[in-house]
Amino acid sequence: MDRMATRRIERTQESRRLLVAAAAELFAEKGYRQTSFIDIAERAGISRGSIPWHFGNKLGLLEAVVDDRLQAVLTGLTPPAGERPADPLDQVMDFIRLPGTRLFITLLAEAVEVDSPIREHYARLHAALRQGVRARIPAGALPQGTTPEAFTILMVGAVIGVHAQWRVAPEAVDLEAVRAALRALLPPGPGRP
Amino acid sequence: MDRMATRRIERTQESRRLLVAAAAELFAEKGYRQTSFIDIAERAGISRGSIPWHFGNKLGLLEAVVDDRLQAVLTGLTPPAGERPADPLDQVMDFIRLPGTRLFITLLAEAVEVDSPIREHYARLHAALRQGVRARIPAGALPQGTTPEAFTILMVGAVIGVHAQWRVAPEAVDLEAVRAALRALLPPGPGRP
Repeated sequence: MDRMATRRIERTQESRRLLVAAAAELFAEKGYRQTSFIDIAERAGISRGSIPWHFGNKLGLLEAVVDDRLQAVLTGLTPPAGERPADPLDQVMDFIRLPGTRLFITLLAEAVEVDSPIREHYARLHAALRQGVRARIPAGALPQGTTPEAFTILMVGAVIGVHAQWRVAPEAVDLEAVRAALRALLPPGPGRP
Repeated sequence: MDRMATRRIERTQESRRLLVAAAAELFAEKGYRQTSFIDIAERAGISRGSIPWHFGNKLGLLEAVVDDRLQAVLTGLTPPAGERPADPLDQVMDFIRLPGTRLFITLLAEAVEVDSPIREHYARLHAALRQGVRARIPAGALPQGTTPEAFTILMVGAVIGVHAQWRVAPEAVDLEAVRAALRALLPPGPGRP
C-alpha cells in the first residue's frame, strides 16, 4: 500500500474515533434522543455529512459508542499479562467513577425499552462485568446457599445501584464507606488478605 | 358543603388520579420525552385541555407521577399498625417486581441530568428507601467496619442494579437465587430467624 492510501485510512479511522468520542460525551450529557448530528459534528470538529458515511444512521452511531465502551470495560477487567488480577471489589467500585459509566446509566433507559437496538449490547456488558467478577471468586469462598452466579449479579447490581444513588445525591453517598461495607460483607479471595 | 359540590370535587380528584395513572404507564412504556398530552388524555379517557388545569405543564405532571409513586413506596415500607415489620430483604426484593419500579428505572436517566426537575424527587425516593431499610437493621448486627448508612446504600443499590440487569436480560437473572445470596450475606435481624 502506498503512503497516501495509508494516510487516507488513518484519517478515516481518526475521524471515526473522534465522532464516537464526541457522541459518547454528548449522549452522556444530553441523552441519546436529545443529541443531533449537528451537535456531534460540531463537538468532533468533523463535517456532519461524514456521520452517515461512517455509521449509517444514529442507531449505528449509538451501537458504535456502546461497543467502544464495552471494549474499554473488558480491557479494564483483564489484567496485563503476568500481573496479579486486581481485587474485584476495587475494580467494581472504581468502575463507578469512570467517566464512561455515566453514559451507561444515561443510556440504560434506552436499553430497557422494548425492541431497543442497544438492549443486546447492555446484556453483553452486564454479562461481561459478571464474568469478570465471577472469574475472581475462589471456589468454596461463598456462604452456603449462595451461587457464584447470584453473588456476581448482586455485586454488579450494587455497583450499578450505588452509582445511581451517587449520581442523584452525591452528598448522601460516601463511596469509601460503601467500599468498606462491601469488603466486610464479602468472603476473602485472591488479591485480598 | 352541598352534595353537588362534593361530587364535583370527587370528579376532579378522580380525573387527576386517572391522568397520573395514565402518565405513569406511558412514561414507563415510552419514556417521559416521547409521551405527549394527547397520548395521556387518550389513555386516561379525559379531555386533553384538563391536563394544564391540573398540573400546569408536563414537568408538573412528571412531578405528580413521581410523588405518587414515592407515596406508594413509603406506604409499602410502613407496616400496618400492630403488625411485625416485614423482613427488609423480602421488602427490597419484592420492590423489584412492583410494576411501578419499571417507571423509576426509565425515568432515572431524566433524574440524573443536570438541572433535572425530578432529581430532588429521586434523592427523596432513595433516601426514603434507605431509611426504610435502615430502620430494620438491629444495632450491632453489621460486620465490623460497616456503617448502617453504607450498608443501606449497598442494599438499595443492589435492588436498583439487580433490577436493571433483570430488565435487560431476564433469562440471565434468577431473582430467587439472588434473594438467597443476599440472605446469606446479611446479618440476622428482626423478622429473620
